[in-house]
Amino acid sequence: LHYPVLDKRGEVINTAVTNLDLHDLARLARTYGLRAYYVIQPLELQRRLVQRLSSYWMQGKGGEYNLTRKQAFESMRVTASFDEAVEGIEKEAGQRPRVVATTAKKLKGSIGFSAAKEMMKSGGAWLLLFGTGWGVDPEFIERSADYVLDPIDIGSGYNHLSVRTAAAIILDRLECGRDG
Amino acid sequence: LHYPVLDKRGEVINTAVTNLDLHDLARLARTYGLRAYYVIQPLELQRRLVQRLSSYWMQGKGGEYNLTRKQAFESMRVTASFDEAVEGIEKEAGQRPRVVATTAKKLKGSIGFSAAKEMMKSGGAWLLLFGTGWGVDPEFIERSADYVLDPIDIGSGYNHLSVRTAAAIILDRLECGRDG
Repeated sequence: LHYPVLDKRGEVINTAVTNLDLHDLARLARTYGLRAYYVIQPLELQRRLVQRLSSYWMQGKGGEYNLTRKQAFESMRVTASFDEAVEGIEKEAGQRPRVVATTAKKLKGSIGFSAAKEMMKSGGAWLLLFGTGWGVDPEFIERSADYVLDPIDIGSGYNHLSVRTAAAIILDRLECGRDG
Repeated sequence: LHYPVLDKRGEVINTAVTNLDLHDLARLARTYGLRAYYVIQPLELQRRLVQRLSSYWMQGKGGEYNLTRKQAFESMRVTASFDEAVEGIEKEAGQRPRVVATTAKKLKGSIGFSAAKEMMKSGGAWLLLFGTGWGVDPEFIERSADYVLDPIDIGSGYNHLSVRTAAAIILDRLECGRDG
């Protein structure tokens, strides 16, 4: 999610796309057997940039050079809004997804990793929401998410991971893809 | 590790530094309570680039702007060789580290995550080795590592993660930092 997310000061902003996020998240989605990876970016120019990158790896010389990258980008979708992403998943999965938001700060009513894992294993369509910048706007989470996942907390008192590495840890903890 | 690692064709090469690797790995090291994060890069110009980046976040405007980044980069060291890194750890930790290499391909005699976790919890100094490019040269692993960790295997038949995301998953699975 590139909007609405927070900046360092807690203001709501629209972030720009980071090239390596797309690569890392697409490869994670493929590794963990996710049906799709949605990039939600309201800025049209940014969306076109993402599409061009994806085309390079899907159809161009990139696909010939690196097949595994092509396989990764096959799961990537680009939408202008969160609602469009939800609709896209509904179309792909045949049912409306339940939304699990992730956050680096403990929010009220958040659920643990084991609980989330069990819930997701029981079936249905799920949207795991990751924010860029300083994370998804909490007001947006309040309005749009069915559940909020506990933060990754190691007990070191430091929790400032990139969205790429946080997503890796969360997908692994939720054991995504392990039961098909 | 930037040398010796493999390229796409399996040839041994020296990779260049990726800016976001430094950020992500330094932040992971801090999150998971690692004593130090060593960047092993034989190319002098590349080492100077890393030092300059680190200085920016440690002393320059970066440190004022983003304290958490400064805290992350405090754990970063830059050496020209693997041996130098081992010596550095020996000096910092007061004992020679045992070396656990990571790999994306199953190697003979590799150990599981639970076994590695138990072993590392028993104390001592440890060096977890991550390769850039297409991974650490297996001959180098054979010569230099005490143990090799099983690959991250989700069973999806796809295992092409970035070093950033693989390191995140491995540190989390080994429960680094959970017992101090």
